[in-house]
Amino acid sequence: MKQSTIPFKTRKDAPKDEVSLNAQLLIQAGFIHKEMSGVYSMLPLGLITFEKIKTIIRDEMLGLGASEVSLTTLQDKNLWEKSGRWNDEVVDNWFKTTLKNGTELGLGFSHEEPLTAMLRDHISSYKDLPVSVFQFQTKFRNELRAKSGIMRGREFLMKDLYSFSSTPEAHAEFYDRAKDAYIRIFDKVGLGKVTFPVQSSGGSFSKFSLEFQTITDAGEDIIYVDHDKKVGINKEIMSDDVCAEFGFNKSDLKGVKAVEVGNIFNLGTKYSDVLGLNYKDESGARIPVVMGCYGIGIGRLMGTIAEVFADAKGLVWPKSVAPFDIHLIALPDSDGMVMSATEKIYEVLCDSAKSAKMPINVLFDDRELGAGAKFADADLIGIPTRIVVGAKSLAEGKVEIINRQTGEATQINITDISSYLHG
Amino acid sequence: MKQSTIPFKTRKDAPKDEVSLNAQLLIQAGFIHKEMSGVYSMLPLGLITFEKIKTIIRDEMLGLGASEVSLTTLQDKNLWEKSGRWNDEVVDNWFKTTLKNGTELGLGFSHEEPLTAMLRDHISSYKDLPVSVFQFQTKFRNELRAKSGIMRGREFLMKDLYSFSSTPEAHAEFYDRAKDAYIRIFDKVGLGKVTFPVQSSGGSFSKFSLEFQTITDAGEDIIYVDHDKKVGINKEIMSDDVCAEFGFNKSDLKGVKAVEVGNIFNLGTKYSDVLGLNYKDESGARIPVVMGCYGIGIGRLMGTIAEVFADAKGLVWPKSVAPFDIHLIALPDSDGMVMSATEKIYEVLCDSAKSAKMPINVLFDDRELGAGAKFADADLIGIPTRIVVGAKSLAEGKVEIINRQTGEATQINITDISSYLHG
Repeated sequence: MKQSTIPFKTRKDAPKDEVSLNAQLLIQAGFIHKEMSGVYSMLPLGLITFEKIKTIIRDEMLGLGASEVSLTTLQDKNLWEKSGRWNDEVVDNWFKTTLKNGTELGLGFSHEEPLTAMLRDHISSYKDLPVSVFQFQTKFRNELRAKSGIMRGREFLMKDLYSFSSTPEAHAEFYDRAKDAYIRIFDKVGLGKVTFPVQSSGGSFSKFSLEFQTITDAGEDIIYVDHDKKVGINKEIMSDDVCAEFGFNKSDLKGVKAVEVGNIFNLGTKYSDVLGLNYKDESGARIPVVMGCYGIGIGRLMGTIAEVFADAKGLVWPKSVAPFDIHLIALPDSDGMVMSATEKIYEVLCDSAKSAKMPINVLFDDRELGAGAKFADADLIGIPTRIVVGAKSLAEGKVEIINRQTGEATQINITDISSYLHG
Repeated sequence: MKQSTIPFKTRKDAPKDEVSLNAQLLIQAGFIHKEMSGVYSMLPLGLITFEKIKTIIRDEMLGLGASEVSLTTLQDKNLWEKSGRWNDEVVDNWFKTTLKNGTELGLGFSHEEPLTAMLRDHISSYKDLPVSVFQFQTKFRNELRAKSGIMRGREFLMKDLYSFSSTPEAHAEFYDRAKDAYIRIFDKVGLGKVTFPVQSSGGSFSKFSLEFQTITDAGEDIIYVDHDKKVGINKEIMSDDVCAEFGFNKSDLKGVKAVEVGNIFNLGTKYSDVLGLNYKDESGARIPVVMGCYGIGIGRLMGTIAEVFADAKGLVWPKSVAPFDIHLIALPDSDGMVMSATEKIYEVLCDSAKSAKMPINVLFDDRELGAGAKFADADLIGIPTRIVVGAKSLAEGKVEIINRQTGEATQINITDISSYLHG
């Protein structure tokens, strides 16, 4: 993509009304736009990054055999009254609205109720199970305060997966596979080393839930982790008894700040009971379906990646989720030779991307700007590999390749670029 | 995709609470699920069809040089008060909600205001223009009645494109290109022959707007069309004067029912004036930006395609938007030979899809059901080409290929399937 075609510009300074690093950097670099506290629009660079994260997650969900759907935002009060979650004292972050005829509606903060109700039409026998369904859908949560940028939004995109099993044992089997898929997802987006499966409170569903917590000072949670065993426990449930229950050695656990990037709840038959989602077993008896839900907030994950990898100069994206693989920069020159040579390199890279199995996506800074402004933008945007074309190196048939993370710079021959990148 | 892995089943009968054909068929065939009047969730088959339509539209939008973004649902009242559209007497289909602190918010029924406001940070000079931005985003419209299925939803996905130009002439140039892109989009989704650019009222923006109207009895509009010249005029503005203005010969125009599948509004400087979106021209004077907006409702388009092509047996999808290219059906047999042979054909087709430029996507009916049930489902779902594998033809090394639209059936050798499909 030619950078001159993106109508959204970077900012010289971070926005003054943001206290979180992720929002400051993502706004400054032109990834997102703030509509109001906790409500952010996605600009082209942010949307591409989002799609990369979504693709990684979607592949793992499909690998679990889950079917993709998209439920609605508008929620039927009747369903939520059955589960007891319509009441604002039970769920304190509803956004609600009203139809013309006065009927109250909710904006979905989660989708257990409508999906459970929907599946009553499709699950009737043990032969119909197991089933798993996921979606990428906007959630609305009426947070009292929203100061964590895209890490705690009032409106945010979430991947939510729901599993439906015949027995607790069948549920446990799916749960384990989903847990492994989650570990792979956080690995793939670059957070594997700092992300821990952590035992936490099960809320109203069960004794415990499993959180995936990423260690960062931007986190709102305190977790105790065993770095060697890669396990942890949320401070909320920390006690000698709970440590013993999970076989944790309290002296091996170290307290750190972390952000919850994913979670898994054992729902049991809470929703299938109240909404009547039953199946007939082989003897013909009607049995409530055992459910689990598995969430990853896409905005929160993107914000966490931003916080974990950013440096003083700006964002630093892991390759797997970077909006582009290459930032190709034409330095200014007097006679236009550099621009036309860079244009040619861009075309060669785009052509090779079409035929390659792993296409290389290039952001080409073709703007009429000075070298300083271009480098500052490239640092801010944080694409992993930078190729700089200047008059001096061009005269020698070379370009400079710079690693955004390490700052390491190497010169290579122009003719070697493709093999260097694909090699 | 193996049909046994889709947890959503077809229904024997159309839902009784739906009066529109599109909702009846799409629900019965397992494409969508009704949450409440005018509010439908997308099931796997519906979501795949949606994505196919979106890809066709996205390609054309990117071809116009437009940048993709995703604005938010939650809307800041302050912006809409500036344009005068917060008032429920001006816009009578708002859904509104409230923050914990009492601040009123709207749910976006359109996005002119926030996008115009956002671009104030990015457009300052004539050098920054022209700019065009599009999104696929859910719109919320508090319709008094919603009986047209997914053709008039209270919550629905829309592609909205907005253009920003320096002068009316530059706007007209973009407008013409966008109009051509719209004509190509309706061609590509299979509606070209029955879709007409139609002059209509410009509402509060300008004297006229351009609608794209698809002729169907399910339509809510009456349009007068000249079939030869492929132009038309909406009944709302039909008069001798208007006919004369557009050079239409009234006697050549024929009244038909139609549904508006797209529209283009000349917004002029209505929003840039009130929201202060100005640019500096070459002399340094501050000039308001000239805007246009260009909408296509994705649900309405899918519903229209369903209505236009359906027959007595069910849905009939044009190839370009069908959820799958091939419905591969294994007929029941006693010894499992047919199932294993069909499984092999499925694998070959999937493998060839991986290497082909135009991959062929296959829905493989591997369910343990009788031939009648499988054929009825295949008719209902409406995938263009059906490959039927039965014991008798298999013994001769053949399969039957059936065209869903014409019903035409041919037998071909199993070894010729790939070349038949790719040829």
